[in-house]
Amino acid sequence: MDYPNDQHPAAPVRSGIPEHGRIPKYYAVKARISALVDELGEGGLLPTERDLSERYEVARETVRQAIRELVLEGRLRRQGRGTVVAGPKLEQPLSLASYTEGVRRQGRTPGRNLVTLDRFPCPEALAAETGLTRGEPVWHLERVLLADDERVGLESTYVSVARIPRLDTDFEPDSSFYAYLHQQGIAFGDADERIETVLATPREALLIGTPPALPMLLIHRVSRDTDGQPLERVRTLFRGDRFSFTTRLRG
Amino acid sequence: MDYPNDQHPAAPVRSGIPEHGRIPKYYAVKARISALVDELGEGGLLPTERDLSERYEVARETVRQAIRELVLEGRLRRQGRGTVVAGPKLEQPLSLASYTEGVRRQGRTPGRNLVTLDRFPCPEALAAETGLTRGEPVWHLERVLLADDERVGLESTYVSVARIPRLDTDFEPDSSFYAYLHQQGIAFGDADERIETVLATPREALLIGTPPALPMLLIHRVSRDTDGQPLERVRTLFRGDRFSFTTRLRG
Repeated sequence: MDYPNDQHPAAPVRSGIPEHGRIPKYYAVKARISALVDELGEGGLLPTERDLSERYEVARETVRQAIRELVLEGRLRRQGRGTVVAGPKLEQPLSLASYTEGVRRQGRTPGRNLVTLDRFPCPEALAAETGLTRGEPVWHLERVLLADDERVGLESTYVSVARIPRLDTDFEPDSSFYAYLHQQGIAFGDADERIETVLATPREALLIGTPPALPMLLIHRVSRDTDGQPLERVRTLFRGDRFSFTTRLRG
Repeated sequence: MDYPNDQHPAAPVRSGIPEHGRIPKYYAVKARISALVDELGEGGLLPTERDLSERYEVARETVRQAIRELVLEGRLRRQGRGTVVAGPKLEQPLSLASYTEGVRRQGRTPGRNLVTLDRFPCPEALAAETGLTRGEPVWHLERVLLADDERVGLESTYVSVARIPRLDTDFEPDSSFYAYLHQQGIAFGDADERIETVLATPREALLIGTPPALPMLLIHRVSRDTDGQPLERVRTLFRGDRFSFTTRLRG
């Protein structure tokens, strides 16, 4: 009996199989491939779709659907023409520490590729969210986030030009924006964050290099400095198959 | 020009449309239906697939795919035979406050339906995560979470029997577990949480009444009491189309 004694508290109860009623055939195949993934371990090469469809005596399309879900969930990843067992998700703390710090703590090298840096009058919605003045000049800095050269996210930062007038000339776009703020003598006071799951848009999928409609984790941040003045509005999209977020709560 | 001046900082840049390259036809249709959703407002009835496919001069299947994604994202919901504009996602604070409190704060009525209450020897993985003793009796309480009678999540709580021996006789399974702990004189010290996105399994989809493979938000919690002793291990799955989570960070 694999329930309840082998039940890992992080895993779905009964491996997700209903007590009553039938389950789709692809899901039964997914459960078997999932067990195979555990045996193979990180980096292990999955047998081909053809091999698996022969082994489980099901159609190739059934195997394909099972593998597709395991890829979306980050248990498998495509590598060249093959499919290999993925490593665990990166755990990023929900904190005012930077992306850089979070990724380094996991032994990975953080990086960023600049997509856009532009400057425009503060739109109504941004003013309402941050307390900036409608029409005042703001920067929009958009960057792809990297971990060990793998594209893992996309970040848009909106910040007042009055606050950091030389962002376009002073700042190395592949470096930490928070380290730059710190050099300018700007310190974080607090921030409100909201986390949700969304599907990648075609533009986001293209920039991050993911399949379109991959579930992503989207974090919205509105931060203030130590005087309570508006600092930045950030929208960061993380690959849902590669990231989880952690926090410590106090009673 | 709808960028950058009409750009809402919460929305994808350029509405998700790449600067270069083509976009899938269904996505162009999705962007048009999305604008229609904004016009209709919460509760508004979407025209039929047939009407939309005639209006946009595309195949029914193209309209269907666009609507499917808008449903997965929680912008639309099925109602009887029709499709209506959904309300905003419920915002639940990441805190040691209970589900009850979070839902009430949004003017909704919380509820729970009991799925399982069983008792078994503490499995290895649970012992490792919590500090409970391998083999000591633990309860597993599994409940569907409701908001205004709508099924919105599924929660598994693992807790030591020695800690609350009369859970099976004393406790009303449709009431707040945290209120019950409080009555027993047990107070929370702290908790570690981890949040990720996963796909609903067939069993979970059946229990919560969602389409299978809907992206969900999964929260893992390991909590301790004020003496630092292990209290509970919780796995809570929330509909990704209905929930977001908020937190306040301090510098």
